[in-house]
Amino acid sequence: MAAQKDLKSLWGGRFTGGMDPLMQLYNASFPYDKIMYAADLEGTKVYTAGLHKLGLLTDHELSEIHRGLGLILKEWEAGAFEEKPDDEDIHTANERRLGELIDRGIAGKVHTGRSRNDQVATDMRIYVREQLTELKKLTKELLGVFVARAEVEIDVLMPGYTHLQRAQPIRWSHWLLSYATYISADLQRLEQIIERVNLSPLGCGALAGHPYGIDREFLAAGLGFGGLVPNSLTAVSDRDFVVETLFWSTLFMNHISRFSEDLIIYSTAEFGFINLADAYSTGSSLMPQKKNPDSLELLRGKAGRVFGGLSGFLMTLKSLPSTYDKDLQEDKEPLFDALTTVSHSIQIATGVLSTLTVNKDKMLAALTPDMLATDLADYLVRKGVPFRETHHISGAVVRLAEVENAGGIDKLSLAQLQSVDARFGEDVVAEVFDYEKSVERRSAIGGTAKSAVLDQISRLRKQL
Amino acid sequence: MAAQKDLKSLWGGRFTGGMDPLMQLYNASFPYDKIMYAADLEGTKVYTAGLHKLGLLTDHELSEIHRGLGLILKEWEAGAFEEKPDDEDIHTANERRLGELIDRGIAGKVHTGRSRNDQVATDMRIYVREQLTELKKLTKELLGVFVARAEVEIDVLMPGYTHLQRAQPIRWSHWLLSYATYISADLQRLEQIIERVNLSPLGCGALAGHPYGIDREFLAAGLGFGGLVPNSLTAVSDRDFVVETLFWSTLFMNHISRFSEDLIIYSTAEFGFINLADAYSTGSSLMPQKKNPDSLELLRGKAGRVFGGLSGFLMTLKSLPSTYDKDLQEDKEPLFDALTTVSHSIQIATGVLSTLTVNKDKMLAALTPDMLATDLADYLVRKGVPFRETHHISGAVVRLAEVENAGGIDKLSLAQLQSVDARFGEDVVAEVFDYEKSVERRSAIGGTAKSAVLDQISRLRKQL
Amino acid sequence: MAAQKDLKSLWGGRFTGGMDPLMQLYNASFPYDKIMYAADLEGTKVYTAGLHKLGLLTDHELSEIHRGLGLILKEWEAGAFEEKPDDEDIHTANERRLGELIDRGIAGKVHTGRSRNDQVATDMRIYVREQLTELKKLTKELLGVFVARAEVEIDVLMPGYTHLQRAQPIRWSHWLLSYATYISADLQRLEQIIERVNLSPLGCGALAGHPYGIDREFLAAGLGFGGLVPNSLTAVSDRDFVVETLFWSTLFMNHISRFSEDLIIYSTAEFGFINLADAYSTGSSLMPQKKNPDSLELLRGKAGRVFGGLSGFLMTLKSLPSTYDKDLQEDKEPLFDALTTVSHSIQIATGVLSTLTVNKDKMLAALTPDMLATDLADYLVRKGVPFRETHHISGAVVRLAEVENAGGIDKLSLAQLQSVDARFGEDVVAEVFDYEKSVERRSAIGGTAKSAVLDQISRLRKQL
Amino acid sequence: MAAQKDLKSLWGGRFTGGMDPLMQLYNASFPYDKIMYAADLEGTKVYTAGLHKLGLLTDHELSEIHRGLGLILKEWEAGAFEEKPDDEDIHTANERRLGELIDRGIAGKVHTGRSRNDQVATDMRIYVREQLTELKKLTKELLGVFVARAEVEIDVLMPGYTHLQRAQPIRWSHWLLSYATYISADLQRLEQIIERVNLSPLGCGALAGHPYGIDREFLAAGLGFGGLVPNSLTAVSDRDFVVETLFWSTLFMNHISRFSEDLIIYSTAEFGFINLADAYSTGSSLMPQKKNPDSLELLRGKAGRVFGGLSGFLMTLKSLPSTYDKDLQEDKEPLFDALTTVSHSIQIATGVLSTLTVNKDKMLAALTPDMLATDLADYLVRKGVPFRETHHISGAVVRLAEVENAGGIDKLSLAQLQSVDARFGEDVVAEVFDYEKSVERRSAIGGTAKSAVLDQISRLRKQL
Repeated sequence: MAAQKDLKSLWGGRFTGGMDPLMQLYNASFPYDKIMYAADLEGTKVYTAGLHKLGLLTDHELSEIHRGLGLILKEWEAGAFEEKPDDEDIHTANERRLGELIDRGIAGKVHTGRSRNDQVATDMRIYVREQLTELKKLTKELLGVFVARAEVEIDVLMPGYTHLQRAQPIRWSHWLLSYATYISADLQRLEQIIERVNLSPLGCGALAGHPYGIDREFLAAGLGFGGLVPNSLTAVSDRDFVVETLFWSTLFMNHISRFSEDLIIYSTAEFGFINLADAYSTGSSLMPQKKNPDSLELLRGKAGRVFGGLSGFLMTLKSLPSTYDKDLQEDKEPLFDALTTVSHSIQIATGVLSTLTVNKDKMLAALTPDMLATDLADYLVRKGVPFRETHHISGAVVRLAEVENAGGIDKLSLAQLQSVDARFGEDVVAEVFDYEKSVERRSAIGGTAKSAVLDQISRLRKQL
Repeated sequence: MAAQKDLKSLWGGRFTGGMDPLMQLYNASFPYDKIMYAADLEGTKVYTAGLHKLGLLTDHELSEIHRGLGLILKEWEAGAFEEKPDDEDIHTANERRLGELIDRGIAGKVHTGRSRNDQVATDMRIYVREQLTELKKLTKELLGVFVARAEVEIDVLMPGYTHLQRAQPIRWSHWLLSYATYISADLQRLEQIIERVNLSPLGCGALAGHPYGIDREFLAAGLGFGGLVPNSLTAVSDRDFVVETLFWSTLFMNHISRFSEDLIIYSTAEFGFINLADAYSTGSSLMPQKKNPDSLELLRGKAGRVFGGLSGFLMTLKSLPSTYDKDLQEDKEPLFDALTTVSHSIQIATGVLSTLTVNKDKMLAALTPDMLATDLADYLVRKGVPFRETHHISGAVVRLAEVENAGGIDKLSLAQLQSVDARFGEDVVAEVFDYEKSVERRSAIGGTAKSAVLDQISRLRKQL
Repeated sequence: MAAQKDLKSLWGGRFTGGMDPLMQLYNASFPYDKIMYAADLEGTKVYTAGLHKLGLLTDHELSEIHRGLGLILKEWEAGAFEEKPDDEDIHTANERRLGELIDRGIAGKVHTGRSRNDQVATDMRIYVREQLTELKKLTKELLGVFVARAEVEIDVLMPGYTHLQRAQPIRWSHWLLSYATYISADLQRLEQIIERVNLSPLGCGALAGHPYGIDREFLAAGLGFGGLVPNSLTAVSDRDFVVETLFWSTLFMNHISRFSEDLIIYSTAEFGFINLADAYSTGSSLMPQKKNPDSLELLRGKAGRVFGGLSGFLMTLKSLPSTYDKDLQEDKEPLFDALTTVSHSIQIATGVLSTLTVNKDKMLAALTPDMLATDLADYLVRKGVPFRETHHISGAVVRLAEVENAGGIDKLSLAQLQSVDARFGEDVVAEVFDYEKSVERRSAIGGTAKSAVLDQISRLRKQL
Repeated sequence: MAAQKDLKSLWGGRFTGGMDPLMQLYNASFPYDKIMYAADLEGTKVYTAGLHKLGLLTDHELSEIHRGLGLILKEWEAGAFEEKPDDEDIHTANERRLGELIDRGIAGKVHTGRSRNDQVATDMRIYVREQLTELKKLTKELLGVFVARAEVEIDVLMPGYTHLQRAQPIRWSHWLLSYATYISADLQRLEQIIERVNLSPLGCGALAGHPYGIDREFLAAGLGFGGLVPNSLTAVSDRDFVVETLFWSTLFMNHISRFSEDLIIYSTAEFGFINLADAYSTGSSLMPQKKNPDSLELLRGKAGRVFGGLSGFLMTLKSLPSTYDKDLQEDKEPLFDALTTVSHSIQIATGVLSTLTVNKDKMLAALTPDMLATDLADYLVRKGVPFRETHHISGAVVRLAEVENAGGIDKLSLAQLQSVDARFGEDVVAEVFDYEKSVERRSAIGGTAKSAVLDQISRLRKQL
């Protein structure tokens, strides 16, 4: 006993009367979950319609409740909702307010057979569905800019890189469509995730199911859900829709990080392929020529932030006992942050992409004849030389050009070429040493030839 | 110069002649990528058929190549493939071997217009598709055990927990189906991922596309792919199918970690709900009564391992310049490890689940009357008392039972109950203080009533 | 050109005149970095003293600047600092305000030779040092409660678990000190990290160093730094002090997650070892007996959140080109969030620990004779029987007790024991079947005997 | 019953007799923990000396045990240790072998009072200490190459970048030392971690402490430990030394990823600042001019792999019940993989750095006059112009040079400069437009002036 008292005195100074004010702060989700006010009101509206259908609410009661919910919605929309210290979450706040606006006895019935557990899961799914639908729209806009830009700048050639070393000439549009291809898959994934988000947990109670046999399909239909979470224990504790949203966001931002990396490198003085619009770069009054690609760096950096949300929440979920645990409250902040970050990032990426300018001369100047060594080998293949042999011949030509200090394999005379291999013909210069022809030969599906690029464009257009 | 020499002498001792043996080791993927030998051979078989169709291989050449590939496959299958020091990856090894088995000139043509970049992407997609298809089969088996067990043990009641505190009575089958619901969604996700894995990158060359116009659709069909990666730059560098596989594995193992956590707790002496089979627990010769749930702990622990593979590879990908970079070689080890870990884990989980025994008496004994407080409130709701009021009445009954030291709310007399609220009737005992009835009232879709559980079972059966 | 215009029209609707308002929002750090206002003012105060020492500021100028800085500090402290739309970060805001409060010409000199790059690094290190010093104090308080509690409750015995299975009797204090040992190492690590945080980057300019030869040691001393970051490129871009802080926080919270897990399990109805104070649990008006351990669940869950900050920021840093990149701005939010989360969590953990009550009877009741099987073997070792043999004998005794339905190995008669092994003597009951004696035999350093526990307490006290 | 049988038949086909062969595989750690054979033997050697000191082993017994351990060590070293199917881990294997080599009764005593739990913790700490000590040596070698190279190439100038945009001239050595500074901090951290690894858990038994009062300090001294883990519960389950090792490795590789990124960019055709040695790049027979920086890309990519080990293991640990759980077995593979990866990576980085060649002409050519805009402003500051004003003047000069198409601010005449600001004097060209002078002005500690670089070198040398 004395011991017990000593322990309390160690700590007790901080608070009295059995309350720790910090615990209230630690516990409260209202500061961030109030963003879901509309979803919460909508959920209650439909849920009470379900109670009415069960005979647990009269016509009058339902009408009063719906009237009250409508008033609360207006308060929120007008920024006039008055928060109270005991509003620990959006559900408490809205229900507290309802009891102030309509008859308290009637208001006291809205929660009949519902628990905080199915309520919060419902609100979140409504909210996330709405946000992901908005992200889908934004993603299509980004995809649209990729496609439009690829179409109008289809004649611009640039070096294609592997290992960040110049490899083969490609179309700038082909590079653009490479990222469009990633974004296109993102869009497909997003649609599949929205379907899994869009399942109703409402009517599952605290964990074991609804005690009055509510019509869950009626509730789901009323809230626009495409189906039901089929098990009540799962319904109240499944946060996979959060995990999937965070993963989608992470993978999307990963693509954006690679896109940004390329553009940051392309906008260095050394590469000089592109110029960012002033809106998306930061100048310096001191060094007006220096334009820092802040937008792209933030896009790249935020790929980490969103991944942090995913990895943190996965750890929170790991080995959690089944059904609802309070740990699950940690779902909201990473989720909301990711949704906002991705929404902004898509729009910034769209802005950057639609306003940058291309220095096609710089791109062209970066093409060098040795990038045609593969084409030289291909020429020989078409003359019937086995591939592995053509490889060595082509390499020998490159070395000859170096030894002769010729200034490029395209500067060697036909005689010099034939000194390496007699099968080189008069057509070699016209056939091989032409970047446009090199590009146009890649006409198989997915290649960098104009026809293949246009084909990609028309496929992507179908998704828009 | 002298400086340069000094630097080299700082280091040069370690190797001579411009070679660092450690670099070879650091660079080589053969020790782990040889697992894809069959996919690599199959890829080459179909690719050369494509070359033949283009007229770049004669009938005889194709026939010889296919004969050689068949011989190599037999060597691998017999464990007789002889590895050579220069076999830095499976592609090199197989091609080297082909040159030994058939005419070297003919063998030298198989790589015409193909690069290591599209080859490795093709091999991986074939291999992953096959592995994921196997995981799908195993996952269905696990799901089948959940469903079968839920059906045969449908009469067993247990406490349902929230916050790991006893909350409401549920069926053991309902708990089982809660996890089955997660696994069922895993299965749906897996099918969608397999579709995205199953796209052909073959015929995209090093990065810019195929220089001889190969028929990529022919190649894809020959390899059983469902479609093409539509852009060559993407085709050679897109590892999203690896990321998606790792994410799927992570989320699946996360579910398994929660399942394991529950079972580890349920198998403590204090809970005593289940007994693991000897095959899945470790006894001690010293303490024969102690059965450590090693299988479940490993299942739980390996959730971390697989997540590590995902997070590591996402970091590897982050802000990588586009098309192929050598960093991408880091895709294979986490991928292969995850595939093996998940395959084993599904099978262990299936084994654990199908062999554990349930102590239904212990489960029943853990049900306590206070878990029916909600039902008591529900009883009053059905008598027309507003929900929020019933809440307080029910709480008052629980406190009365404590004060009276009654040994549970079910031990209070009707008079005592009516002293709290006059609306309690004679039917209260029969209606409320019966765990089976409590459970049966949760008959809305997804609830724990027998009919609702059987409905879940029949829905899940459709997926098997 | 026309193409360019088309692209802009695709997007241009969103903003006009070359400005994207979203980009301003995306770029701004003021909403979260203003928390460092005092560090920023202090940095400028000392920096300008350095400029004065160099002769770049007159006495009057320095005095005016310091007066202005003092006024700004007061505004912040009074909540009276007026934010302006162009205040993109705390540095801009404070400098803007200085120009309003004192002569603009003088204010225009404060940044001489300083850049945003060394300024922000300085501010952050000052701020983090202060926060970590506060965390150190809080950590010591937590450690103090562990130690105090361990001392007063040293007589309480409980089961020690491995694999969550009862293994051997231990002191409750020993369990407490196990976590104290982790926290003690956390404290050591924290002190080492503070030393590395506490290095001055000030006077390094934008990247290449200070152009007027400022006395960096004077600046460091003025700001209480323990040393200098020795390379200017590193000074402006090194965020390892952020990473180390995040890692420390992650590992600390990981310990807290395990502590919480134990206590959540110990507070189940089935274990019943402890009761949380009302302040740290959430009751239900409906189920007054149910006390959800919300505090512990949040502590456990937030371990994920903090890890998310670490992993996200590590990804942001990964393969970033050297010196300052805008990506680094993503350092602040995870850092500040972790500092707050950990500060709150330590205090909550301290509150929980100092107010929970122990059910020593429940703990004692959970001790079972089979947990003494090891002691039985140890008894035989002391009688000279080889260890591996004692193992088998002890196991045989346990099985005998089961077969005989004896109700525990302590209920077997001496004759029964001797039927297993003749070396059992009369002293066996007194020596072995006594939990207190079992515990007291573990008296080697670090063991659970009272003397060994007191020794741990006295070691830990030295750190307080 | 029938149900039970049905379940088993669902699964039972896979194995019979209560054994699941896959479980053995899933459970076994021998394939990877046998790497610790020497540590395990050493641990047993010292532990038995402790038993002897307690009188639990005779002189003869101890001598026989030590003889046997010596024989086993020789077998391992000769690659002659014969593995048996039941060797589930290195501890079992070594003990099994001891029983074959010496009297089984004597061998049966080695484990007296020891458990697998303290044994494995001891082995790991011995092994990790040894590996980290080796990493320390390798890290010093790498640091040595940085320092040596910085010294010999101190005269090479290059652009310093922020945002990957050219900012100010710096010394190449200054860039080198920036990374050396990171590595130097890594070394300091490593030493602190080694101290925490180097604590002895031996003598703590399964969890509760040693039952015969073994002298833990004697054991620790015998094994070269610097101290004891002070609590037995912690001793057997604390894996923070693994977490710290993984974190150290992650942060180190993060530094290496940034170093690699810089060098990959510097070795592009567009930058052209460095050439990798052939040993560390991969050429192509086809494109001999193309040298892919495979070594650097692998270094960069493996930063992800090591981080994956950290994040995975942190998740495994999260919310694990206290003392030993089987989940902890998941510590070894990420740990061993990280140790190997980092060891190789340091050596590869050292090799790359000591053999690359610098194109100082390319570096010099990348310096442009506009990078001296800051210096121009600094010039004016020294003439007494307030800093913010100098900023604008300098910007105006840059713009003038552009308008006049002057080809750089250094090409403007004095008259032109004075048209912007009359305070420009005759000395401006000599003072400002000289990259060497710009660099030399940064002579404050940590700056890029030669004296400041040499000072850094001499500080770093002290750590070698």
